[in-house]
Amino acid sequence: MSEADDFLKVAREARDAAALLGPLPRAPKDAALRMVADALVERSAEIIAANALDVDRARENGTPETMIDRLSLNEDRVRAIAAAVREVAELPDPVGEVVRGGTLPNGLELRQLRVPLGVVGIIYEGRPNVTVDGAALCLKSGNAVLLRGSSSAFESNTALVRVMRDALADTQVPAGAVQLVPGITRDSVKHLLKARGLVDVLIPRGGASLIQSVVEESTVPVIETGVGNCHVYVDADADLDMALHILLNAKVQRPSVCNAAETLLVHASVADAFLPRALAALAEAGVTVHGDARVAALSDAVVPADEEDYRTEYVSLDIAAAVVDSLDEAVAHIRAYGSGHTDAIVTRSQGAARRFVALVDSAAVAVNASTRFTDGGEFGFGAEIGISTQKLHARGPMGLPELTSTKWVYTGEGHLRTSTGTVIAPAGS
Amino acid sequence: MSEADDFLKVAREARDAAALLGPLPRAPKDAALRMVADALVERSAEIIAANALDVDRARENGTPETMIDRLSLNEDRVRAIAAAVREVAELPDPVGEVVRGGTLPNGLELRQLRVPLGVVGIIYEGRPNVTVDGAALCLKSGNAVLLRGSSSAFESNTALVRVMRDALADTQVPAGAVQLVPGITRDSVKHLLKARGLVDVLIPRGGASLIQSVVEESTVPVIETGVGNCHVYVDADADLDMALHILLNAKVQRPSVCNAAETLLVHASVADAFLPRALAALAEAGVTVHGDARVAALSDAVVPADEEDYRTEYVSLDIAAAVVDSLDEAVAHIRAYGSGHTDAIVTRSQGAARRFVALVDSAAVAVNASTRFTDGGEFGFGAEIGISTQKLHARGPMGLPELTSTKWVYTGEGHLRTSTGTVIAPAGS
Repeated sequence: MSEADDFLKVAREARDAAALLGPLPRAPKDAALRMVADALVERSAEIIAANALDVDRARENGTPETMIDRLSLNEDRVRAIAAAVREVAELPDPVGEVVRGGTLPNGLELRQLRVPLGVVGIIYEGRPNVTVDGAALCLKSGNAVLLRGSSSAFESNTALVRVMRDALADTQVPAGAVQLVPGITRDSVKHLLKARGLVDVLIPRGGASLIQSVVEESTVPVIETGVGNCHVYVDADADLDMALHILLNAKVQRPSVCNAAETLLVHASVADAFLPRALAALAEAGVTVHGDARVAALSDAVVPADEEDYRTEYVSLDIAAAVVDSLDEAVAHIRAYGSGHTDAIVTRSQGAARRFVALVDSAAVAVNASTRFTDGGEFGFGAEIGISTQKLHARGPMGLPELTSTKWVYTGEGHLRTSTGTVIAPAGS
Repeated sequence: MSEADDFLKVAREARDAAALLGPLPRAPKDAALRMVADALVERSAEIIAANALDVDRARENGTPETMIDRLSLNEDRVRAIAAAVREVAELPDPVGEVVRGGTLPNGLELRQLRVPLGVVGIIYEGRPNVTVDGAALCLKSGNAVLLRGSSSAFESNTALVRVMRDALADTQVPAGAVQLVPGITRDSVKHLLKARGLVDVLIPRGGASLIQSVVEESTVPVIETGVGNCHVYVDADADLDMALHILLNAKVQRPSVCNAAETLLVHASVADAFLPRALAALAEAGVTVHGDARVAALSDAVVPADEEDYRTEYVSLDIAAAVVDSLDEAVAHIRAYGSGHTDAIVTRSQGAARRFVALVDSAAVAVNASTRFTDGGEFGFGAEIGISTQKLHARGPMGLPELTSTKWVYTGEGHLRTSTGTVIAPAGS
């Protein structure tokens, strides 16, 4: 069979599994998730052995140690992955929730119910834990999942999926609900991108270039996730001590994540008071500042910034910086260069906060708080499939409800629609 | 300037207008809508004169009279269009609604607010009233709109947009918020389909082929609307009198709309009791039945159905029909051939209704009611931009809230995220 045929077979199995999984109530889904968690722990030696093959090959290819670390599994990490599956089992089931409802004036009972999306495709990079996290969140929300991980984690992902599917064999959840996209060539992902009608939504998780290519090539609806060019704007009325703490927390606490700050904007009226302290503190934390002329004038250590710096998600100990003459100029900068993830204002002014919140068009706006709080866990969702930076369907951290659609159900007693209103059909035999 | 440049200019004006319109509260938006309604009535002669040019050209081209009727405007119709705009002004403003919110354990105040999508593109066919309806719904929900109507209505649409934009000149809503896509060639629509980053969502309204081509070619996210291959399933436990009324209402009351029935499925155990009556009643109503062998055996008037009939949205006095041996077979038929719009069951059995509702994967499921009730007006939305048959973002009738996205806002007092939990930055000067 060709790779295209292999893909079709897998996708159709996923569709069939979705039709069986979708109507299942919570208890059998949770039971299946606990079976999966148990199996992951019981068969951890097998998983770690498969992972070792990926790690060895990555080392041979000269992969940097930070990437090797992301890829590597050990006993503790497999236990943590299993624990995350058990946590998903504890979360409320979004499926069946009545979102809106009531009785219409004509007596029709109308309800809008949450239902699964159907088949979800997840395309992701190095970390094997996404294979299990993604599968668990999809199962809990009643969706079948097609997983397309990095070829660098192929052996690990194959083992993880084998263990999960074996565990599902003794449950009401069909094993077809969890599948790897066959093939590891760059072409094999194309079948997934063109599977409109078989796959209901694609979620790319990873770097900007992965996400961009999925968005451009897919005919399946995509939920864009995660590129975070986040801003911290220090307003004319900011508490400068608070601003310094928020800036450092947003930039330094975990620079590799999408809700870390990438650009500092400072109102001109506090630039002289704030920037020298900020530059010194950032330098001490090992951060390179890429600044405009007004920032660069304050320190020789500042690297001159160009347009590209303001567009860049560094995900490193680098930050772009600029002085703005007004809150509106800060907003215009964020609208022009930002990625619509999270932008923060530090201010004591209620009016400034209100205007910033109204004008900044991003998934999240933080007032006197670090950008680092834009996170499904912090928001109390209990789990997160990613952070959407698009406006359709889901925006910001996506939990279980964001993995659902809705269905309208209306119930009558022979309700007919006429040009003058509703008529009830006469009762029969 | 080239057509591509013209489009870019218009799209950028729409983006700038959206940034100004988005934060406006309800009162200035409603005032602007009332100005638009007044202007449409005051300048109806100008609109009708422009429409006459379209109608004359359509006649010259030999357009059928039903299409001419859809295209034609007169004093009464312009008044009705203006009245619809006033009704939109009366609807609640979805923007700013707090969808979810509360205080997190760490004291951060978290709110999820409805915000406009930004720039909405609407691609539609013959009826000029969509030009005004679409603009009014977008303005009310804080969105700028790019309108791309049929070339057959070009003069009418140009006049309607000119009148609306002139009316906006004296309001707080920028005229750039309502624009026609320049050009009437088939190519000109391509610019809209490829305007990712400038246009936030495209809504095609019209026939199946229009919607299909937009879905396939667009890089902008699309909300698919309206193809309705709706089913009426007469269960073994149906009240057959009720079933007959529902079938006739769903098929005949208005056959040209997307929530009309296109396929009848009858449980084998009631086929002999129901089908002869149904075939006679349908024949009397002028409906041609395209049936499977078991249906065709009952009447010479039945045209043999092939696979294509079961896939077809006739929007005419035709209906496909088949006998099924179980409720599950009816569900399988609907899943295989349906368009995911609206499917109805007629049954007295609570269990059958429950199973049908759980297994049919459509935007709306009707129990003992005509499919004709799937409609924004009937659901109490007050207005409708279309009926979504996709699962992402909106499913079923779309009112004003479906023209919005959301934004998360969190407010702290120097909240910092650390590896061990939240820390509040020490207060400063």
